[in-house]
Amino acid sequence: MSDVFSHPWFGGLFADPEIEHIWSAERQLAHMLAFEAAYSRALGKAGVVDVDTATSAADMIEAFKPDMADLRKGTEIDGLPVPALVRQLKHSAGPLLPAVHAGTTSQDVLDTALALTLRSVMDLLAERLTTLISELNRLNEAFGSNALMGRTRMQAALPITVGDRIATWRSPLEGHHDRVNYLRPMVARIQLGGAVGDRRPLGDNSAAMADFMAAALGLQRSDTVWHSTRENITEFADLLSLISGSLGKLGQDICLMAQQGLDEIKLSGGGGSSAMPHKQNPILAELLVTLARFNATQISGMHQALVHEQERSGNAWALEWMILPPMTQATARALSASIEMCARITSIGGVQTEQP
Amino acid sequence: MSDVFSHPWFGGLFADPEIEHIWSAERQLAHMLAFEAAYSRALGKAGVVDVDTATSAADMIEAFKPDMADLRKGTEIDGLPVPALVRQLKHSAGPLLPAVHAGTTSQDVLDTALALTLRSVMDLLAERLTTLISELNRLNEAFGSNALMGRTRMQAALPITVGDRIATWRSPLEGHHDRVNYLRPMVARIQLGGAVGDRRPLGDNSAAMADFMAAALGLQRSDTVWHSTRENITEFADLLSLISGSLGKLGQDICLMAQQGLDEIKLSGGGGSSAMPHKQNPILAELLVTLARFNATQISGMHQALVHEQERSGNAWALEWMILPPMTQATARALSASIEMCARITSIGGVQTEQP
Amino acid sequence: MSDVFSHPWFGGLFADPEIEHIWSAERQLAHMLAFEAAYSRALGKAGVVDVDTATSAADMIEAFKPDMADLRKGTEIDGLPVPALVRQLKHSAGPLLPAVHAGTTSQDVLDTALALTLRSVMDLLAERLTTLISELNRLNEAFGSNALMGRTRMQAALPITVGDRIATWRSPLEGHHDRVNYLRPMVARIQLGGAVGDRRPLGDNSAAMADFMAAALGLQRSDTVWHSTRENITEFADLLSLISGSLGKLGQDICLMAQQGLDEIKLSGGGGSSAMPHKQNPILAELLVTLARFNATQISGMHQALVHEQERSGNAWALEWMILPPMTQATARALSASIEMCARITSIGGVQTEQP
Amino acid sequence: MSDVFSHPWFGGLFADPEIEHIWSAERQLAHMLAFEAAYSRALGKAGVVDVDTATSAADMIEAFKPDMADLRKGTEIDGLPVPALVRQLKHSAGPLLPAVHAGTTSQDVLDTALALTLRSVMDLLAERLTTLISELNRLNEAFGSNALMGRTRMQAALPITVGDRIATWRSPLEGHHDRVNYLRPMVARIQLGGAVGDRRPLGDNSAAMADFMAAALGLQRSDTVWHSTRENITEFADLLSLISGSLGKLGQDICLMAQQGLDEIKLSGGGGSSAMPHKQNPILAELLVTLARFNATQISGMHQALVHEQERSGNAWALEWMILPPMTQATARALSASIEMCARITSIGGVQTEQP
Repeated sequence: MSDVFSHPWFGGLFADPEIEHIWSAERQLAHMLAFEAAYSRALGKAGVVDVDTATSAADMIEAFKPDMADLRKGTEIDGLPVPALVRQLKHSAGPLLPAVHAGTTSQDVLDTALALTLRSVMDLLAERLTTLISELNRLNEAFGSNALMGRTRMQAALPITVGDRIATWRSPLEGHHDRVNYLRPMVARIQLGGAVGDRRPLGDNSAAMADFMAAALGLQRSDTVWHSTRENITEFADLLSLISGSLGKLGQDICLMAQQGLDEIKLSGGGGSSAMPHKQNPILAELLVTLARFNATQISGMHQALVHEQERSGNAWALEWMILPPMTQATARALSASIEMCARITSIGGVQTEQP
Repeated sequence: MSDVFSHPWFGGLFADPEIEHIWSAERQLAHMLAFEAAYSRALGKAGVVDVDTATSAADMIEAFKPDMADLRKGTEIDGLPVPALVRQLKHSAGPLLPAVHAGTTSQDVLDTALALTLRSVMDLLAERLTTLISELNRLNEAFGSNALMGRTRMQAALPITVGDRIATWRSPLEGHHDRVNYLRPMVARIQLGGAVGDRRPLGDNSAAMADFMAAALGLQRSDTVWHSTRENITEFADLLSLISGSLGKLGQDICLMAQQGLDEIKLSGGGGSSAMPHKQNPILAELLVTLARFNATQISGMHQALVHEQERSGNAWALEWMILPPMTQATARALSASIEMCARITSIGGVQTEQP
Repeated sequence: MSDVFSHPWFGGLFADPEIEHIWSAERQLAHMLAFEAAYSRALGKAGVVDVDTATSAADMIEAFKPDMADLRKGTEIDGLPVPALVRQLKHSAGPLLPAVHAGTTSQDVLDTALALTLRSVMDLLAERLTTLISELNRLNEAFGSNALMGRTRMQAALPITVGDRIATWRSPLEGHHDRVNYLRPMVARIQLGGAVGDRRPLGDNSAAMADFMAAALGLQRSDTVWHSTRENITEFADLLSLISGSLGKLGQDICLMAQQGLDEIKLSGGGGSSAMPHKQNPILAELLVTLARFNATQISGMHQALVHEQERSGNAWALEWMILPPMTQATARALSASIEMCARITSIGGVQTEQP
Repeated sequence: MSDVFSHPWFGGLFADPEIEHIWSAERQLAHMLAFEAAYSRALGKAGVVDVDTATSAADMIEAFKPDMADLRKGTEIDGLPVPALVRQLKHSAGPLLPAVHAGTTSQDVLDTALALTLRSVMDLLAERLTTLISELNRLNEAFGSNALMGRTRMQAALPITVGDRIATWRSPLEGHHDRVNYLRPMVARIQLGGAVGDRRPLGDNSAAMADFMAAALGLQRSDTVWHSTRENITEFADLLSLISGSLGKLGQDICLMAQQGLDEIKLSGGGGSSAMPHKQNPILAELLVTLARFNATQISGMHQALVHEQERSGNAWALEWMILPPMTQATARALSASIEMCARITSIGGVQTEQP
């Protein structure tokens, strides 16, 4: 109840249904089961178990309905849900037991599920960045030639045009779109390492199994095991904060432009006050600043979490679980709020000016 | 779903029912309504409305069942739930209208509700600190005279006793208990400022009204309005992180002592692995490190949120909403996990040594 | 050269001579030698060595001129300067050797030196807070009854007076003055623990020795050894950031008030631009925001540094060395810049209004 | 004196001569003058002034010896050194005045100087990453087939080889080398925008002038002005912290391996203790953890600094000045310390094992 993204009323401001769906328990479970099923098939492909057993196990896994209370109880005891999930699967496996989870480890499951989740997050980011760039282009067409006072150090400097400022808002977004593409194969990749990340329990076919699973799951293959090397995940978190930071600058500018006395922008549908009915607060613009500063705070924890001990750090990994998902929510919401805010802009800047 | 504290399975590790209850929507709503009712009574007391109207309004408010979907919708539009809540109350008020919310503002409601919440949080912290100190004393009695190698810079230094190390774990906890008492009146205090924090809409009786409400709600009175001066709240957040930091040191030590090769501690009920059934992972000790680093990350955002603009910053205030509640959860959970972990310790240190 | 506080030109903006002096190498060395001298005398007092030897050793130490290049070299090898300093002292001690450093440890020296430094920092903070409060009172007398538009969420709300806003700036400063007094005995206290913090090398007289040294050095006595429990130091860092945060709000408000279009404040001596000679930038007000956000960033590292391992963490302790001194500089500079900025204010708010 | 990197004795541990040289006042001034000279030549190239005047102005600028005290004084007044520097240049310019700084702005100068500095930093990082990878390869050849207990959650898990762990240390370094190359053109690029970043004072030839200057200075050309869009700079800071984070994991592992009881590594030349002559502290390994956590703290401030107001934020930009240079020092030192530490490793792991 204390989390703003899922809060009964604060959710009205902070929640974003699409990113919430991506992180839903159903989707997360589906990703874990997808890993286990692909792994069973890979065991068959590698000849560790016969193909029929592998296929039957995969089918069983894909249709499996886990006992959620037991997953929760298991997480309390084991620190993560996979041992309980695997116990449930094995309990249901009967003769298919050799094709269930043998040789892989909890972190393979959770990290691959994370990769599948982040693939969806990246798709959402890319799509919204494109939409937001279009919105800014639309505003530029409508208002770009209007005059605006350029301000440096919050002081009037020299006249510019609205188009100049919009260009400043837009230019990092194009870079972010490129960054999503750059990071996609680095982040949406298979994790398969086995208990201590050396792939030895998987035998000689480990690389082939990993490649097979990557293809089956629509992920990038990976020559390395990234159990305790979280740089790509952290770099993705950096991107989340870079995006929300760019949008924080947009929001800050809108807040400043909306000040009475400056009156450089008009927005419809501003927020009301319980005490001052005349007010039209630029709620969404403020929210962008908040989300930027939230992610700028969180990013520190992701970098702290790089300091894994040995083959797997329970404490650093759990810190990632705490911090990364809310960062994706903040960024997704910053994008949707930006798009919505742009749609509410009814004018920017002063009278039409001649281009210098 | 992405918040570990309320997560279907991660909640098994991170959730703490008592702190969750404190932040429940029901409790939060009850606090907001308690404010509005006390305010109505204060209006009667101050002679702004007649006492019967004031009392009837207060009774109506205390029995009110808000429309939650409308609160959520209102938060989406206004950036906070109070305008919608007040609209609902006024709609139900009929002739009691003059005794409902007239002269106060949204931030008075939310901040006073926060003060009521943090009062409960402080009670919980104080109680758990006491319990944890008792647990450490118990461990000291059982194992305090055992030998232990003192380690500095993670290297064997000189022999100490288990009691020396336990004393190091315990001593900051006693300080934290004092800090809770020191901060209680600074944090659990009334907020009453009106629209722009100058108390002018409340007239000459503003101070008396604030004092009356403080007494009615069991909060500390306040000569100042703290709409945009959040130092006490931030100092409370500092304490949350100081506590979890001390417990992080405890957890880190336990993790190090539990290493095979050192074997300086034994814990029952360690976590299992999906790949290595022989393992007994010190899940709770690791969790303490995670929660310490989580709060050490978050605290930065609370300090950033001190930079309020003018009479109220929408963006800085909302940052506080995002960060403070999870910090209380992390600290509460760190305390419960510490207590639980201590109960699982079955031995510490080596053979009995003579006291030097 | 990359540190703004000691930078050849950036120092013009960021440096503060008084805090720089507090952290000068001379002062730091003097503090370390003061510890060693007091310790020698304490050894005499405790009867560990005869009083004449103790006194002669203390005199020798107080007059000692360390070889700085050797301290640097020693720090490279040992990770801190004390082993090299002690080697130098012992080399000069001749027959006084038994009265030099025997039974204490590097951390006792560095932490007590830190306590002496922070005592001076606290004096500086207290003095400047008092001056700044006076400056704000002066501004209030001059301009307090002027009209000002109250602004919430950066939007015009209701009229207030300049005095209302000044009261908001001033009120946390009074709290900070109290906090300095509250923390002084918790921070300016002796550290004496010996190699592993158990005081055993000091024998039965350890507590008496620590008390004697505290008195000799003008520090608070301490029943506990705080080698690996850094809560009080971190709480002091919290205060540094609370102060700079309050001043960041002041600076932010001044920046907003100075905007053309609002024109709510006039400052003399604003900064110039290389491209726009007409500009009068509110440099000091901006600096306050920067310093607030700097400290709000740093504070996270201080809380991370609470997670000490065992009897002493080399890595967490060194993190404190990196972060705490710049925080004191940022806060000291924020105070001096605030005082200077207030002196430059030539008007605030509009025409004289009647008090409501 | 309070900055560890330039500190008289702490510098022995933290300073790195090569990165210090890159940030020296001389180098910084040379970069600023190089910008001004290239700009004068560009004015000639563009026909704004005649080529002879441009060339003579550039020659004069390149030979110019600024008055440092005046730069410091100017920074105090203007918030940055460029207005004072330009006044000095113009004072010396005589008839060359039209070819000095006309149409550009302080931020163009400082940002281009930063780009030149970061180009050197990136060269240093790339070179050291290569050296460190070689060192790790050497260690792998020497000790890679030795047995090591794989540890997860700080608990013994399954046997691995030293080579497995070295591979984990090395793999992110290869990624970082790629990241340096990826970021080089995004960071080492020209800044040329004029007073409000719209390039209008530079006339129609602005893009050509920027390209000419980029070529002259060995920087990447840039279609955009990045006065208030700091994403690439922040992304570079992210990389600094990703690198130090990877090395923090290396350092943490070494600290853990060096524990008595585990004894999985031997290092020559460990640090001594003033109280315990027998100790061999893994100073450099600890330093790596410290530097990782330092940068993980700082990175938050860089992301906060993305929230620029309008065409230029004085406060956000100055925050960058405070935070980015120490981050480069921390990362450079982490690399040199890692290389030095690897050279001191005399054995890792147990007896030779057969490869599985």
